[in-house]
Amino acid sequence: MMRTLEWDYVTNELKMIDQRRLPGELVILSLRTCQEVVEAIRNMTIRGAPAIGAAAAFGLALAARESGSREAAGLLSDLETAARELKSARPTAVNLAWAVGRVLRVVGPNPPLPPSLEGKGGWEDRSVDELRAAVLAEAQKMADEDVAVNKRMGEHGVALIDDGDTIIHHCNTGALATVDWGTALGIIRMAHEQGKRVHVLVDETRPRLQGARLTAWELGQYGIPYEIISDNMAGHFLRTGQAQKVLFGADRVAANGDVANKIGTYMLALAAHDNGVPAYSVVPTSSIDLSLAHGGLIPIEERPPDEVLEIQFESERVAPEGAKARNPAFDVTPNRLITAIVTENGIVYPPFEVNLPKVVKV
Amino acid sequence: MMRTLEWDYVTNELKMIDQRRLPGELVILSLRTCQEVVEAIRNMTIRGAPAIGAAAAFGLALAARESGSREAAGLLSDLETAARELKSARPTAVNLAWAVGRVLRVVGPNPPLPPSLEGKGGWEDRSVDELRAAVLAEAQKMADEDVAVNKRMGEHGVALIDDGDTIIHHCNTGALATVDWGTALGIIRMAHEQGKRVHVLVDETRPRLQGARLTAWELGQYGIPYEIISDNMAGHFLRTGQAQKVLFGADRVAANGDVANKIGTYMLALAAHDNGVPAYSVVPTSSIDLSLAHGGLIPIEERPPDEVLEIQFESERVAPEGAKARNPAFDVTPNRLITAIVTENGIVYPPFEVNLPKVVKV
Repeated sequence: MMRTLEWDYVTNELKMIDQRRLPGELVILSLRTCQEVVEAIRNMTIRGAPAIGAAAAFGLALAARESGSREAAGLLSDLETAARELKSARPTAVNLAWAVGRVLRVVGPNPPLPPSLEGKGGWEDRSVDELRAAVLAEAQKMADEDVAVNKRMGEHGVALIDDGDTIIHHCNTGALATVDWGTALGIIRMAHEQGKRVHVLVDETRPRLQGARLTAWELGQYGIPYEIISDNMAGHFLRTGQAQKVLFGADRVAANGDVANKIGTYMLALAAHDNGVPAYSVVPTSSIDLSLAHGGLIPIEERPPDEVLEIQFESERVAPEGAKARNPAFDVTPNRLITAIVTENGIVYPPFEVNLPKVVKV
Repeated sequence: MMRTLEWDYVTNELKMIDQRRLPGELVILSLRTCQEVVEAIRNMTIRGAPAIGAAAAFGLALAARESGSREAAGLLSDLETAARELKSARPTAVNLAWAVGRVLRVVGPNPPLPPSLEGKGGWEDRSVDELRAAVLAEAQKMADEDVAVNKRMGEHGVALIDDGDTIIHHCNTGALATVDWGTALGIIRMAHEQGKRVHVLVDETRPRLQGARLTAWELGQYGIPYEIISDNMAGHFLRTGQAQKVLFGADRVAANGDVANKIGTYMLALAAHDNGVPAYSVVPTSSIDLSLAHGGLIPIEERPPDEVLEIQFESERVAPEGAKARNPAFDVTPNRLITAIVTENGIVYPPFEVNLPKVVKV
């Protein structure tokens, strides 16, 4: 199966799975412009903090191809414009800013030269085509690293899963939320591949239902047994002793270990905590933002009310005509409810203020 | 507007609003047999603990008309069979058992005679037609009492609501959940009628979406401003100080104040408690079951998985083909998370073991 997103070196397009169409249909889109990538991130054709980070990196590769500039400074200016657009597509996940920042460093003054350019002169000596190639090479490197990072998270995190566990999982954190493999779901997948018997209670994850649509679909592909529940049922299963672990990802982790993640994570973590069930947030270090002291500083995206209002039950529209809705897409779970944060560099336990910096390479 | 359910004295049918069709259409059904009432309760044509209690009482009135027996003992036997059917339609709300028990006492040995039969002899001296009339009279009396009881709950509970409050409300507890007026929503309605400015964040209440469908529709009728949220958003609004009260009903309250209510209530009450926001359960004393020491003894109904699986998002089925789901319809909120229980006989504060018996008339 293809990755969630892949650069096509024949056509120089960015291919990606249209996640709005799953599980009904597996549709692969071809994106030719950076603006198409911005729009794909905004409308959730692609979602998941690591996946949108990689998409933004490839978006800059498209922007570099689109730029008509014949000199490095002009190209850099075009890329900076594109970077602003990409970063503004969605505000909560820090990976967008992290990814475009990393790509821009490659083409900015004093770049860390990729092997292909080593031995050449400084930034201003490189041709625009070399810079274009460097942008694409960096995006590709980041995509490849994402897969490796996910597998390392899985290897660390799998130790937390016991044979026979029933795990409540929120949103989608699988291959589709990343370039490939997954974060929290990657741990579940690794436990399954190691022969541990696991059962997943899949939070459907209103309003966009990434759990019922994407996580259920992935678990079906992997042959891992699961049952879908509505988000508000998790407390019942925890209180009646029917779940032993709670796993989710994160869109941004603050320096004190507060976790911004898909709406509903806070209530799920509360219910886990109230019943002594461990709750783990699984994130690449690229989602950790040490510049923010606590979760209250993380911007929370509010999305269109239609996502709440326009579901159908028994083929009828649910809400009355003219109904209003609110739609915060994320919430912040305070660090006291997080048992540990699993990263590619190891499992981090409280006190997070002290221990998170140890795994983040600045 | 008509009541949620009404006896038609011309046709001797039970009329009820088909709650599965709202808010799209206001459809009134005419039920002619007790079995139709059982089915209407089971398939949620009518729902809400007080409403299904009244429906069961009228169901016995239909059963009495259906009975071919010419003597009191035979009629009583037929009614006892019907009562078992009605009680088994849904297990969690205690109101079904309470209502059929109360009606059966009217026609059983040593009945409390209604005024129309006073001065006559004992049970065995009454004609079958007199007993039929007594059953209907008792059902009608219970329906009328339900409306009065709701208004008294509202009068007690309205003192808890402050001008300017934003209130998170779970499921539907309005006129549609009762014969008329409502329990928790009745308090909100009374606050509004008294000129207090209130705003309601309406939990959509997955899986059957009684909030988005029924509560939103009722609030629209009453002119009370509201916004629909998905259940998993409540924690975000509580943590960010955007809600001052949490209100819900109950399907059964145990002697220690544990509250069985629509699935999701536990997680909502946890989030309220975590943020110091009061959470009130609003119930008629007919929903209080002093025979059960704690909430762990309350049977929790598990409904068909289709209710979770068969929603559509952007006109597409959500879950993959063959997906499984769980569907517990209720959960138990431990008494430590309940600020107070509002009844028609006053507001009950902890310790509930001590104070609940004072408001329940045995």
